[in-house]
Amino acid sequence: MTDIEYMKLALQMAHSTKGQTSPNPVVGAIVVKNGRVAGMGAHLKAGTEHAEVLALNMAGSDAEGATIYVTLEPCSHFGKTPPCADLIIDKKVKRAVVATLDPNPQVSGNGVRKLKKAGIEVTVGVKKEEADWLNRHFFHYIRTGLPYVTLKSAASIDGKTATHTGESQWITGPRAREDGHILRHEHDAILVGIGTVLKDNPSLTVRTSTGGIHPVRIILDHQLRTPLTAKLLTDKQAPVWIFCSKEADSTKINRLEKAGAEVISISSKIEAGEVLQVLGKRKIQSVYVEGGAAVHGSFLEAKAFQEIVCYIAPKLIGGADAPTVIGGTGFSSMAQVPELDVVSLEQLESDIKMVAVPKRSKE
Amino acid sequence: MTDIEYMKLALQMAHSTKGQTSPNPVVGAIVVKNGRVAGMGAHLKAGTEHAEVLALNMAGSDAEGATIYVTLEPCSHFGKTPPCADLIIDKKVKRAVVATLDPNPQVSGNGVRKLKKAGIEVTVGVKKEEADWLNRHFFHYIRTGLPYVTLKSAASIDGKTATHTGESQWITGPRAREDGHILRHEHDAILVGIGTVLKDNPSLTVRTSTGGIHPVRIILDHQLRTPLTAKLLTDKQAPVWIFCSKEADSTKINRLEKAGAEVISISSKIEAGEVLQVLGKRKIQSVYVEGGAAVHGSFLEAKAFQEIVCYIAPKLIGGADAPTVIGGTGFSSMAQVPELDVVSLEQLESDIKMVAVPKRSKE
Repeated sequence: MTDIEYMKLALQMAHSTKGQTSPNPVVGAIVVKNGRVAGMGAHLKAGTEHAEVLALNMAGSDAEGATIYVTLEPCSHFGKTPPCADLIIDKKVKRAVVATLDPNPQVSGNGVRKLKKAGIEVTVGVKKEEADWLNRHFFHYIRTGLPYVTLKSAASIDGKTATHTGESQWITGPRAREDGHILRHEHDAILVGIGTVLKDNPSLTVRTSTGGIHPVRIILDHQLRTPLTAKLLTDKQAPVWIFCSKEADSTKINRLEKAGAEVISISSKIEAGEVLQVLGKRKIQSVYVEGGAAVHGSFLEAKAFQEIVCYIAPKLIGGADAPTVIGGTGFSSMAQVPELDVVSLEQLESDIKMVAVPKRSKE
Repeated sequence: MTDIEYMKLALQMAHSTKGQTSPNPVVGAIVVKNGRVAGMGAHLKAGTEHAEVLALNMAGSDAEGATIYVTLEPCSHFGKTPPCADLIIDKKVKRAVVATLDPNPQVSGNGVRKLKKAGIEVTVGVKKEEADWLNRHFFHYIRTGLPYVTLKSAASIDGKTATHTGESQWITGPRAREDGHILRHEHDAILVGIGTVLKDNPSLTVRTSTGGIHPVRIILDHQLRTPLTAKLLTDKQAPVWIFCSKEADSTKINRLEKAGAEVISISSKIEAGEVLQVLGKRKIQSVYVEGGAAVHGSFLEAKAFQEIVCYIAPKLIGGADAPTVIGGTGFSSMAQVPELDVVSLEQLESDIKMVAVPKRSKE
């Protein structure tokens, strides 16, 4: 197998742990000695061993003279665990292949330098683009201090999210809906507007065939209209954070906090930018915005999003008054409209899944 | 090369003539003798030689003992030209490979039977699905007497066709727009509502880099509001047919007819079904419906369409009041909503092109 093939496998191993390592990135590592895999591992959970440690431990004495493939630059500083660069040197590894450097400008390149200084042959950049995309949430957060925002859209071919009478179950099929649950699992938080809570009474938890990790549930609720009987308050499955305006009624705040929610009052208008500032300070690295249309409109108009995932169902609902994915006022001129790059396009049963990112910001 | 490869080439040759053979189907033929191509041809224009004739003439005496590949069953009756089945027999062809049978139930299978009776070995069904799809306009018309209807949609990812202020140039890029012109060329007629004429003053002609055949231009114009200065009346590029209600003003009718249009009065409500009946009687085999939203809504609600071609631009326009592709009332319940099958999905520069057909009617 080639460098590219080993790195591809390491990336796939890392990919399988998406959603379970926050606030750490996902990382995969493989140790190869004389053409045989001697060790492999992926970082599984914050506070536990890094991928390199797991792979080197599995390799044991075979690590000496071996090549290690790592999807992210080995750390060179003491965190919750000792620096992986030191362990690689101690184990007398001969060569290290690194997909991409640490995104933190203050330490980026330090791990590689340390390895090189110890006489280890280092190759950087093998499958860099895939490695950067894999940890896009983490990278964005480290660089900006703000969560990575993914907008979710599920609509018919003609862009409708329900019939003109409001019927919306179901637009997309079971496979697309499960895929949406996997995205919930992969994000630190999920965000909806109060309209969605009142209309659908959703639980916003992860329900996939193999289980998953529930994101923090965030509601934008200007006047605190969230009912105490809302499923997401009564089910106790995951934290609930409610953003309200600073003029919100304190009795309501007390009642919702007694019901288990955390209420966060910000300025009178709940603006996307301010919400993201607060979430960033609370170490939320990624937010999955499920709507409704008004919330999507506010994130779009603030250009406060890094990605949009669209599930397009091959159906035609029609109707000038049928609701669409993105509401709000919208842009007035085509020149203001953000252009995107389509990153991927696939079929999920009969539905289409399209992932797009703002042009020239793929990182 | 295998039967499948020769037939694929014959289909590609036929495909290149789409739009120029109406009211005839497109047909390609290849004559192969001892592993060498001896002749090839495609039907080019109604009233001229069929594909088999061109290919057999090119083959000359090599036709004897050869195999002929034809994308559509050879005709067995006298039309504007003598029956191709007879020519194949006269030329002493040894084997005939036919992609699909004649769609007309009264003659379907007759050509093949005639060949077999003359001792020619016949294989039917090689690349049948592609051959049926290629001539879907013709097949639908022959079977129903009604034109095949293709709805066209061009919108942003969030299903909008313009900003809330009405700006719409351009949603899609040059490649997608040229593709739309190729579809105009491939249809016998193009149809829009009076709203589109008043708003955009379109010419509805084919403007591609290599030229093309203009479709008949049809306007649904209840009260005959088409201005005499409309580009499509003044440019004299192709016929203009205007459908109006039977209550329409006769002075207006006279004025428009003097300007070169043909005015067709039907019942007071201009319904999709009735329009298609009239077009079918006038031998229009295919109609490309470009909108606007109200026209699309009426065709959708009447379920009077065989295909929808969607160009999706990777842009987010937003706005609860921004216009969408399909207007009208729309369906009230999800159970009424027509489900489609996605036939193809491709990228045209940065845009996505999706083609879908009503479920279980691919033919």
